[in-house]
Amino acid sequence: MVHNYSKAVLGPAFRIGILGYTGYSGAKLVSLLERHPSVSVVLLDHRHTEGAVSAQPMPVSSNAPPIARMPWSANAVIENHLDVVFTATPPEVSMEVVPQILAQGAKAVDLSGAFRLTAAQYKRWYGAEHSQPALLQEAVYGLPELHREKIRGARLVANPGCYPTAAICALWPLMGKDWVDRSAGIICDAKSGVTGAGKSLSPKTHFAQVSENFSAYAILKHRHVPEVLNNAGIDESDFAFTAHLLPTQRGILATHYLKLKRPVPMDAILDAYRSAYASSSFIRIYPSQGQPQISLVNRTNFCDIHCSLSQDGLRLVVVSCIDNLVKGAAGQAVQNMNLLLGLDETLGLL
Amino acid sequence: MVHNYSKAVLGPAFRIGILGYTGYSGAKLVSLLERHPSVSVVLLDHRHTEGAVSAQPMPVSSNAPPIARMPWSANAVIENHLDVVFTATPPEVSMEVVPQILAQGAKAVDLSGAFRLTAAQYKRWYGAEHSQPALLQEAVYGLPELHREKIRGARLVANPGCYPTAAICALWPLMGKDWVDRSAGIICDAKSGVTGAGKSLSPKTHFAQVSENFSAYAILKHRHVPEVLNNAGIDESDFAFTAHLLPTQRGILATHYLKLKRPVPMDAILDAYRSAYASSSFIRIYPSQGQPQISLVNRTNFCDIHCSLSQDGLRLVVVSCIDNLVKGAAGQAVQNMNLLLGLDETLGLL
Amino acid sequence: MVHNYSKAVLGPAFRIGILGYTGYSGAKLVSLLERHPSVSVVLLDHRHTEGAVSAQPMPVSSNAPPIARMPWSANAVIENHLDVVFTATPPEVSMEVVPQILAQGAKAVDLSGAFRLTAAQYKRWYGAEHSQPALLQEAVYGLPELHREKIRGARLVANPGCYPTAAICALWPLMGKDWVDRSAGIICDAKSGVTGAGKSLSPKTHFAQVSENFSAYAILKHRHVPEVLNNAGIDESDFAFTAHLLPTQRGILATHYLKLKRPVPMDAILDAYRSAYASSSFIRIYPSQGQPQISLVNRTNFCDIHCSLSQDGLRLVVVSCIDNLVKGAAGQAVQNMNLLLGLDETLGLL
Amino acid sequence: MVHNYSKAVLGPAFRIGILGYTGYSGAKLVSLLERHPSVSVVLLDHRHTEGAVSAQPMPVSSNAPPIARMPWSANAVIENHLDVVFTATPPEVSMEVVPQILAQGAKAVDLSGAFRLTAAQYKRWYGAEHSQPALLQEAVYGLPELHREKIRGARLVANPGCYPTAAICALWPLMGKDWVDRSAGIICDAKSGVTGAGKSLSPKTHFAQVSENFSAYAILKHRHVPEVLNNAGIDESDFAFTAHLLPTQRGILATHYLKLKRPVPMDAILDAYRSAYASSSFIRIYPSQGQPQISLVNRTNFCDIHCSLSQDGLRLVVVSCIDNLVKGAAGQAVQNMNLLLGLDETLGLL
Repeated sequence: MVHNYSKAVLGPAFRIGILGYTGYSGAKLVSLLERHPSVSVVLLDHRHTEGAVSAQPMPVSSNAPPIARMPWSANAVIENHLDVVFTATPPEVSMEVVPQILAQGAKAVDLSGAFRLTAAQYKRWYGAEHSQPALLQEAVYGLPELHREKIRGARLVANPGCYPTAAICALWPLMGKDWVDRSAGIICDAKSGVTGAGKSLSPKTHFAQVSENFSAYAILKHRHVPEVLNNAGIDESDFAFTAHLLPTQRGILATHYLKLKRPVPMDAILDAYRSAYASSSFIRIYPSQGQPQISLVNRTNFCDIHCSLSQDGLRLVVVSCIDNLVKGAAGQAVQNMNLLLGLDETLGLL
Repeated sequence: MVHNYSKAVLGPAFRIGILGYTGYSGAKLVSLLERHPSVSVVLLDHRHTEGAVSAQPMPVSSNAPPIARMPWSANAVIENHLDVVFTATPPEVSMEVVPQILAQGAKAVDLSGAFRLTAAQYKRWYGAEHSQPALLQEAVYGLPELHREKIRGARLVANPGCYPTAAICALWPLMGKDWVDRSAGIICDAKSGVTGAGKSLSPKTHFAQVSENFSAYAILKHRHVPEVLNNAGIDESDFAFTAHLLPTQRGILATHYLKLKRPVPMDAILDAYRSAYASSSFIRIYPSQGQPQISLVNRTNFCDIHCSLSQDGLRLVVVSCIDNLVKGAAGQAVQNMNLLLGLDETLGLL
Repeated sequence: MVHNYSKAVLGPAFRIGILGYTGYSGAKLVSLLERHPSVSVVLLDHRHTEGAVSAQPMPVSSNAPPIARMPWSANAVIENHLDVVFTATPPEVSMEVVPQILAQGAKAVDLSGAFRLTAAQYKRWYGAEHSQPALLQEAVYGLPELHREKIRGARLVANPGCYPTAAICALWPLMGKDWVDRSAGIICDAKSGVTGAGKSLSPKTHFAQVSENFSAYAILKHRHVPEVLNNAGIDESDFAFTAHLLPTQRGILATHYLKLKRPVPMDAILDAYRSAYASSSFIRIYPSQGQPQISLVNRTNFCDIHCSLSQDGLRLVVVSCIDNLVKGAAGQAVQNMNLLLGLDETLGLL
Repeated sequence: MVHNYSKAVLGPAFRIGILGYTGYSGAKLVSLLERHPSVSVVLLDHRHTEGAVSAQPMPVSSNAPPIARMPWSANAVIENHLDVVFTATPPEVSMEVVPQILAQGAKAVDLSGAFRLTAAQYKRWYGAEHSQPALLQEAVYGLPELHREKIRGARLVANPGCYPTAAICALWPLMGKDWVDRSAGIICDAKSGVTGAGKSLSPKTHFAQVSENFSAYAILKHRHVPEVLNNAGIDESDFAFTAHLLPTQRGILATHYLKLKRPVPMDAILDAYRSAYASSSFIRIYPSQGQPQISLVNRTNFCDIHCSLSQDGLRLVVVSCIDNLVKGAAGQAVQNMNLLLGLDETLGLL
């Protein structure tokens, strides 16, 4: 599947740009791509994101080869022969630069919320008119476990949000069956580490506020909700979502509650997950005895899933667990890049 | 309401014994009662609980008057003129000593699960026959916000579990109304700090396991479930409960999801809570803007409650929040003791 | 010693103002004084400190009586009959308001660094000319364990810094003896929780930076150094001080290393501490077996001290441990207030 | 330097055994060697260490090829053609199995304290007679930065302790110069995360004890002291060492204090470090502006070093920082294995 194998042997074959490399997701992208066997990286400074960065002095070390770094411009895409550009930028910056990237013949993986929704949803949940409605229609939602083939042929991939990745992976295999009493409610109670809130300073992320603390936020009104509805196939009136802030750096664990129309054996449920994810290396279905934990997915691209049934067989609890910065952001973006480049989906991620 | 005011001025009026003072709940009881204006304390060593305690050498300080300590025996109740004895012991020890305490004329507040359920429930959830079925019938469930008058007249109070305290306080005011579509499911997604798991050593409570981690446990089968059903008035088939372990020392936050039969205005919902808890000093109902957090209840006896409604008015999310060692254990036990002794319910707790 | 006992029985006798009540130390002052039996509190809004505060909505609770709050002005001191005003403000604000407080006949306890040093030291370590050199000469350094009698007669008390409190309490009893080889070096290796860095936002106090991390800072150049030199009686050339940031909210533990001129028995060393602190309720001298820990001093006004000797009797290690917000700030400030008002030094602090 | 390059291209060339793979260091060894390009691994179950392991059920994943596992026996070394065996076992187990490993022609890297000291030191600090004094004499202390050539030719490498690695790397380059006033005292104030205390259960490592806490331990009597003395060239009477427990999972930061005989320019000091470590890829010397932090070395094999001088040039503070499980244990063990096998020292570690 690698279309240029000899280059892979001789050295990195593909050239990748990153805009917005100083946030948590962007920095994780850099560290994942440094170890990726088939790419070389160029950091692109956008005035809105990298302008104010003053790097902390680091120790002198001969080991880390410096990464090329230059100001962002549309020309930089051509001059550097970039194959793919990641935009880990605010949505308004992504809407500005993605058309320029595509116009230069490169592909784009956008980690913001700019290209995940419909134009109407964007206006409702982000409070602003979308400036690139045509690109929005072209963009492919980058959850490879659902849209692998479409991603392979895409120019623009909208990398999913962290909470939606956990929720959709847990809910989607069930939604295709006629098992769930949807009107009873499809509940997603999600908990995330602090890096999910981004790097900007806020009293909410001060150590003395977060440590030994826990709280809910954005109850029933988180802007990640429409992503879940669109991709798992759920009506808004049937869905309830609450986010919570964990006193951890990383990790998302989401607990889902569903009512079944009639008892379904656990084996049938696990089979539904196994067949939905038969070709997905990054989904791990738990047996009934163990339990997903964020420490077992942190620093990996896995999404771990566990199911429990009530004694009467009518209440189903599904736990899903990811690293919000890997499967929930940078790792999934690299997975999408691998697909765009015709590489093995898992390259650089295991 | 204080029946012996002159003694309170002259010095502590009531004499209190504590069995099981070395666990988290027991130690918290000791520290709360040391500051209580109307009691003096005697520590009672039971062979099963205090036998193995080897105290760490503490600094010499003239400030902490030593607390009386002696081996447990039924005679100790009489010789020390104990008015109330707390048993923060395993259920099988509580079933052994509580009858002896009552036989000597003292009252008992039991912090174990021994006297909270029916005999049939006890057998099912604790896996053993109950040895004191008559006392079980006499015991009053010690949630003062629900059973204040019964507690005042009781001999034996079964102090509630930590999770049930959070769940019942959140659900009970709604269950009396004809608002909730019960068969859709009454969901309690609860998260607790590590002290909720008790002090005994386990790989599950090692710092390196808990820190930067989070996971679910006892999904749909926690033994605290029947307490909630009995006291909030919920059928087992309508209830789903999941416990989670937070990387904090203390605190429980529980997020509840309910479907309403028809839209109910938020004002009516808040009024239901306010009138249910009109005479309850320890329940704080949040306005819609703020959010309960465990840091705002830790080291207090408060239970904080917040409600959210979906746009269509049909999905209700109720968050409740307590300190598992105070309102969820020792603080509530002192609240019950105050009621047993005819004292102001809040004495020593504000 | 309480000069107005009948008022204490009838209700709070003294009236206290607080400027700068929104920082960590100021907020701790408020909570300590709310429980203090002999004072009532007025919060004073200074434009530089409280101006920007927008309080988070809190739950409605009948239990916390509202504290009086008004804009700061010199008149407010007279109109409210304030006996003592605390200034938990930046040094430049303290230098502005303290003269006005004293001019109205009230006493002042300043928690900033404004009145702790000589004018020359202030210029060197704070980089600015001192604007109140006469008051600087009048101010008494508020470490009651050293200067109890002077504090009783003072108008202006300079409340010590957190690190100096831990270091001076550990070193001062030894410096009076002819035991220490000073030129070998008097080392203070100090570690503090995050609240020691104050409440203002910084990348250094973001949860994701502090958690699972530890580092040194201000090595050999922390501005708390001259306080230690002045009060423990040490020459600058003999002292080495390093600060470190702990991933905890609170607490300071400082490890001190000294070389002795000749072997001194442990008993003699402990006796030196015991006699130095014979009338000090808040110093706890550890026996050799135990160890101070920040969890044992947090939320108390204690300073715990432990000594170790090398086999040859020539190397002495002294560990001291305080809560940086209590004995290291607000608790010590209340201790000083008690002395200024002729109250028992420990009132409201045990 | 790779003596069998064609095997490296065809697949893993060397066969490695691990005894004691369930502790923190052993588990880290397994994960490092799984990614190492030139080795394959066999897990060896010793009755004292692996006997009681009951693995938690893990999710089914096709990605992790199972590692060979079998009971330990001397024959297992021959039958599996093992080139190197790691023993991450208690010292008494290491003394039993290492002679058997060597007798079968394999090399050994021992991660216990069994082969780091002289026989006399072992008796004093471990309280038992050493059972293999001849092997003790043969063993090479496995700090490659000091003993690289000796390690290349060794049969048995004694992998250093975690604290000694941090202390020796910081102190050794200075000890060769005539700069330090040794009798004034060479101070090492060291702080370690919880995994340094090992995996066995103890009240000292319970989450509720460690979190929001910090304390000193083993003051002036830690058994890692003689390793430092032997390898950095320091007399016992000149050295003072204190260990502290950080509320982190991993990382050691050690702060060293030295008095200089006369002022030495910072440039000369940094040059001493740079030339001492000229061929050492894992030592990073900091410029004066930055600061080592455990978050910058965690999950790496680096040792970061920073120096500060007092204004009079006579007091030197050296901070060193490592990951206790990597450079302080498993990473350094792999570095030693690479040297034993003639591989590049950094293979699998960058």
